[in-house]
Amino acid sequence: MANARLNLAAHLESLHPPDIRPSLRKEVIPALVKAIHEVAEALRESDTVSQVGTANAFGDDQLNVDVLAEKIIRTTIAKCSSIRTASSEEDPEERPARLADEGICQPGTEQYTVAFDPLDGSSIIAPNWTVGTIIGIWDGTTALHEKPKDKLVAAILGLQGPRTTAIIALRIPGTAANCFEVAVNGQRITVIRPRVQFQSEPFKTRYFSPANLRAAAEDEKYLNLVSEYIKNKYTLRYSGGLVPDVVHALVKGHGVYISPVNAVSDAKLRRLYELTPIALIVECAGGLAIDPQDGEDILGRAIDNCDERGGLVCGTAAEVENVRKALL
Amino acid sequence: MANARLNLAAHLESLHPPDIRPSLRKEVIPALVKAIHEVAEALRESDTVSQVGTANAFGDDQLNVDVLAEKIIRTTIAKCSSIRTASSEEDPEERPARLADEGICQPGTEQYTVAFDPLDGSSIIAPNWTVGTIIGIWDGTTALHEKPKDKLVAAILGLQGPRTTAIIALRIPGTAANCFEVAVNGQRITVIRPRVQFQSEPFKTRYFSPANLRAAAEDEKYLNLVSEYIKNKYTLRYSGGLVPDVVHALVKGHGVYISPVNAVSDAKLRRLYELTPIALIVECAGGLAIDPQDGEDILGRAIDNCDERGGLVCGTAAEVENVRKALL
Repeated sequence: MANARLNLAAHLESLHPPDIRPSLRKEVIPALVKAIHEVAEALRESDTVSQVGTANAFGDDQLNVDVLAEKIIRTTIAKCSSIRTASSEEDPEERPARLADEGICQPGTEQYTVAFDPLDGSSIIAPNWTVGTIIGIWDGTTALHEKPKDKLVAAILGLQGPRTTAIIALRIPGTAANCFEVAVNGQRITVIRPRVQFQSEPFKTRYFSPANLRAAAEDEKYLNLVSEYIKNKYTLRYSGGLVPDVVHALVKGHGVYISPVNAVSDAKLRRLYELTPIALIVECAGGLAIDPQDGEDILGRAIDNCDERGGLVCGTAAEVENVRKALL
Repeated sequence: MANARLNLAAHLESLHPPDIRPSLRKEVIPALVKAIHEVAEALRESDTVSQVGTANAFGDDQLNVDVLAEKIIRTTIAKCSSIRTASSEEDPEERPARLADEGICQPGTEQYTVAFDPLDGSSIIAPNWTVGTIIGIWDGTTALHEKPKDKLVAAILGLQGPRTTAIIALRIPGTAANCFEVAVNGQRITVIRPRVQFQSEPFKTRYFSPANLRAAAEDEKYLNLVSEYIKNKYTLRYSGGLVPDVVHALVKGHGVYISPVNAVSDAKLRRLYELTPIALIVECAGGLAIDPQDGEDILGRAIDNCDERGGLVCGTAAEVENVRKALL
């Protein structure tokens, strides 16, 4: 942080040799970060947050701002020639990124699939809490049927809050992983944290973020785990927005986010639009992201359809191991 | 919400006859709401949130954005001739609102004291969560030594989040209390919720917001209360920012915020800059705000110095009564 601050383009350039993924670094990531800021600007212009009266494919109520965010990101995607395929939580079917895409791609050039959640955290939009955008960037023309570990090459968690910030992770095969934070201010994208990294012990403050806490009413293991956090004086932070909750841990350098699945509580989080991009970012920051049902890494199992869902435990590695022992 | 939307000036005009507190309604409240938006704009321009290297009078670390927010609100106050006295959490001493104030005031005209917390929620600025500004407007040239119930005539809770919003309460002696929500967008201030009101049973969702949860490690009553919320499937929302946490309950129409005080946990919240303005807003929305140490109304006891602190239980009246029974 003491270094002179870099802009996003210069930082992305510095991470890899010039011939490595030029479109991803010069075109795709900067364009998507700008789109996240456009979503923030659209949200800022929305005095009221009304129900738009339709439901998306999963049956969620859709808000006018959800529709706006979806359009903004789709428009950006259509302009990035190396993005071949896209799908989103609002329109969860993989389709070509633009009409008449045939013939644009040349063999050997970069080809990506983008899967995104345009505006996560609908329930906290009305009270004006920070919300977020989740984006996964996959190698090839589909995100399905292959291990995310091998195919998910980059992810972005964007926050629309008092400022627009984003955490970006890249894990390009054959290169070292990177995770860093930017702030968007007008047309300027500045790297404000060149390395986002979970800290090691001793921790100054330990944070926990227990999602779906109502499930603990009928899940003794979860209730006991939460009681342990309280007894051990962990600090509670739980906004109910997946993006701000995970980003809190990343920025503070410590934290554990727990969204369990049990007999009374269905898996809620979408593997394609929420779990895998978050898992890549957490892993690139030195943390772990596992499935609370079997303890396996989120990125270890292929996704077979766009609507697959699961739970999530992620954050500081030692804390995730502790939850694995407690819940499994 | 179905009504045509009003701007702030028209709404304030509609609430009382024209001769009632014209300066408060036409000058003071609109100017302070604009200042809250200026704070949001300053925050948005702050790419990084650095420590400014000084501490305020209470020994807190001061952030550069705290200093900016303090200046913005002081400048606004100096321009409002009916504000005679001001103090803030950053500079907690009552002083004339501007230099050379003598002779401005004519007998019989409005005279106010403003006490404010320019930017509440320092710990969640770095992760880009919603923060807030708290403002109390008191009758006369001091906020001290008289019951807040009689002297606190208006309060504003401003939120710097994805949007700028504010909840405003007025309780002018001899008139009905009002509580409403506005959104600020550029120069436009729109009433987005003409009546902010805690709902009655049955509640669709019940929310709880347990501050200082670490205290429950050594406070059995607090631990039992939290366990009851979990067993009864209350929904957790706790950002750790006092303003967003209280505003969440106000906007959702249900919620209880609990910041207990016990042997191991000092009172943290300032009565002048945090507790009393929040209590006025909660009461004007039909809720209760009590001191968890003696169960008395926050607004029932005079403040004798600017640094007095206490705990807080506020929100839906029935929920606050339940906490009173549980903790006392």
